[in-house]
Amino acid sequence: MRFNTISFLSDYGLDDEFVGVVHSVVRSLAPEVRVIDISHAVAPHDVRAGGLALARSVPYLAPGVVLGVVDPGVGTNRRGVAIEVAHGEAFLVGPDNGLLAPAVAMVGGATAAVVLDNPEFHLDDVAATFDGRDIFAPAAAHLCLGVELNRLGTAIDPALLTPGLLPVSQPTDDGGIEAEVLWIDRFGNAQLNVDPEDIAEWPEAVTVEGGRLPRTAMRVGTFGDIPTGGVGLVVDSYGLLALAVDRSSAAIELQLGEGSRLMLRPADGDRPTASSPVNLSPTRRRPDEVP
Amino acid sequence: MRFNTISFLSDYGLDDEFVGVVHSVVRSLAPEVRVIDISHAVAPHDVRAGGLALARSVPYLAPGVVLGVVDPGVGTNRRGVAIEVAHGEAFLVGPDNGLLAPAVAMVGGATAAVVLDNPEFHLDDVAATFDGRDIFAPAAAHLCLGVELNRLGTAIDPALLTPGLLPVSQPTDDGGIEAEVLWIDRFGNAQLNVDPEDIAEWPEAVTVEGGRLPRTAMRVGTFGDIPTGGVGLVVDSYGLLALAVDRSSAAIELQLGEGSRLMLRPADGDRPTASSPVNLSPTRRRPDEVP
Amino acid sequence: MRFNTISFLSDYGLDDEFVGVVHSVVRSLAPEVRVIDISHAVAPHDVRAGGLALARSVPYLAPGVVLGVVDPGVGTNRRGVAIEVAHGEAFLVGPDNGLLAPAVAMVGGATAAVVLDNPEFHLDDVAATFDGRDIFAPAAAHLCLGVELNRLGTAIDPALLTPGLLPVSQPTDDGGIEAEVLWIDRFGNAQLNVDPEDIAEWPEAVTVEGGRLPRTAMRVGTFGDIPTGGVGLVVDSYGLLALAVDRSSAAIELQLGEGSRLMLRPADGDRPTASSPVNLSPTRRRPDEVP
Repeated sequence: MRFNTISFLSDYGLDDEFVGVVHSVVRSLAPEVRVIDISHAVAPHDVRAGGLALARSVPYLAPGVVLGVVDPGVGTNRRGVAIEVAHGEAFLVGPDNGLLAPAVAMVGGATAAVVLDNPEFHLDDVAATFDGRDIFAPAAAHLCLGVELNRLGTAIDPALLTPGLLPVSQPTDDGGIEAEVLWIDRFGNAQLNVDPEDIAEWPEAVTVEGGRLPRTAMRVGTFGDIPTGGVGLVVDSYGLLALAVDRSSAAIELQLGEGSRLMLRPADGDRPTASSPVNLSPTRRRPDEVP
Repeated sequence: MRFNTISFLSDYGLDDEFVGVVHSVVRSLAPEVRVIDISHAVAPHDVRAGGLALARSVPYLAPGVVLGVVDPGVGTNRRGVAIEVAHGEAFLVGPDNGLLAPAVAMVGGATAAVVLDNPEFHLDDVAATFDGRDIFAPAAAHLCLGVELNRLGTAIDPALLTPGLLPVSQPTDDGGIEAEVLWIDRFGNAQLNVDPEDIAEWPEAVTVEGGRLPRTAMRVGTFGDIPTGGVGLVVDSYGLLALAVDRSSAAIELQLGEGSRLMLRPADGDRPTASSPVNLSPTRRRPDEVP
Repeated sequence: MRFNTISFLSDYGLDDEFVGVVHSVVRSLAPEVRVIDISHAVAPHDVRAGGLALARSVPYLAPGVVLGVVDPGVGTNRRGVAIEVAHGEAFLVGPDNGLLAPAVAMVGGATAAVVLDNPEFHLDDVAATFDGRDIFAPAAAHLCLGVELNRLGTAIDPALLTPGLLPVSQPTDDGGIEAEVLWIDRFGNAQLNVDPEDIAEWPEAVTVEGGRLPRTAMRVGTFGDIPTGGVGLVVDSYGLLALAVDRSSAAIELQLGEGSRLMLRPADGDRPTASSPVNLSPTRRRPDEVP
């Protein structure tokens, strides 16, 4: 056996039996493999949100295969793929629609890829609408069992995989940053596509325009340092800036959603005078650095 | 050990610790057994929906024991049972209220059954209201460990188990079909109790009455083939017809719910002229074919 | 290896990847360990509800480590701790904010404790806001692997751990009981902080004031014995009294929430004449008996 873990993310939700059936298919094909559920609450068909969640998770995943299924094009001519990274240290399986691209980039890029067109490694009866069960889960299980990548289907140039399209924050002429909300988490924190280094020279107070109102956010170390009733800019657990409110929801208070556009400016009006060199560790690589 | 997998479905939800406690009981009694969660989001007390979800899942489950708990009569004189199928190839455990019947039928029918009335295989303190924890989970664990069925309680005639009551679609005199929505999935697709063979001779366009309006649905291969703004009739991943809308919810658009009654007719008004013989594989057996 | 099970409860929800990442960290550090999810739907920052859920679950958990994370103070100077119970038969890991206290009390009290301040057993990059991933999960994994408690950090006096603050029901001068709703479960049953022994001498009918209206509840054996349209007082699956309505939600019907105050009185106005001695088994210990 090559691997004994599959890390599984989808937009299947937990209301239906989809996730359980995928687990069951893996259990039947590769009983020794453990399937770890990353999340199945990606909004239906939200490829970008799924790609971001995978990118956030991938530095922490156990060695093995990543199975990602957010697949609005299931049954059409979009391709199902298996992607090798680091010359076989890990594989990612799912639709070729950009979902897997941010995670692939996080772990160094693809070294090989195939289209999953060999029916020998599909379930016997393939429905038009449930490739997660019929094609992707069996592929992930067989990769764990040690089946060679090229047996799963036709090799393709990994450079031609669909890229992820993630928003990049933009410095403006007047010293501000045009940013975007990448993710609202359960606690209402709003992760931005802004690296803390980008505002390292800014004053403590930052003006945020967009959402409900212009607000001044204070750069603080953690949630508990946010003044009561105030807004904080924290470095979140993935190394990006996030807007937060202590023990409440910044998303509700500021009326932000995923994709909301914001303008950040030093609150005193001064432009930042210098910029530190950015030295990102692998686990701090920004999700927006996707090829 | 006889089996190392329990496939678990319930209406416990994931808001409380019920599911985790059942997992813990199995872990304590049979540490080598893996519990696969099929779904726990069956609407509270909705025996029919739970039975359908089990029937859809059962062709894909790993060998072992099915633990199903949707049990509005817990604590009353309804019986808890363990059912053997295929002379011991698998077992199903849960209340005898019809929940397990569709799945039992899918795998060939019961070959033996017992009432779970032997307290030796219950937890020490049995509460009146949590048989999943106190009686069913221990029974499933002990079956995995190899305990003989008859040791779990009094044998009963499997023919006297409570049958599942599932709606059967009906051809009408004027060449239509009276159908019913069996299931609305997360994506809003509405599965009908209609086999694709039943409309194999129909034209591509099918009139659907019921729900919000009469609509014409096109028989298409997959979601992506549904014209924008239109309604499709696809063969879903379980081999039944489903109403679908591309990248949106047919349930919301047509105002359908589980149990909604519909009338299907060939859109041109012609009656179908012939009917192909039906040859269902086991994995395509219809959930409405329950004894 | 000392243990092979971690029982995990949090307020992380399942919408984000937090739970999956914690599973992945454990899988990477201690691949043989199984993580059992107790619940992750504790309301955000609701330490009391999380503590009650752990207390309800703990008698059923498999031997090993309990990982509990409901942590509004993450990143502040609140302490992260590992607590030994029964001289090493089990450990609990999480924030020292009272979350773990009811469960610790249920299993006999702490015999040792450390603050998790040894970075050797943290992940390499510790963020300010995700101790579950960076500190608590690694601690739980290392305890499973056999690392000595004292290596994880500075020993502290277990008597100085933050206690749980749970409401205790109070007898009143006129023979009633002031009670509080501890928990509303998925089915709408309202668990009270009242031991059945406390009303053992009362008549069958009990007057309940609070919530929507004064109502008379009948003491019954199980849900099915509640008269249609009526309210029942059942001994729930954890050995406490709960208000219930047959096949409906007592919480909705009586407008009760967690924390609602109620007054119980014998419906005939008579004071109870005697009180049986209370003899609680370990699994029937009341969650309100927390030091």
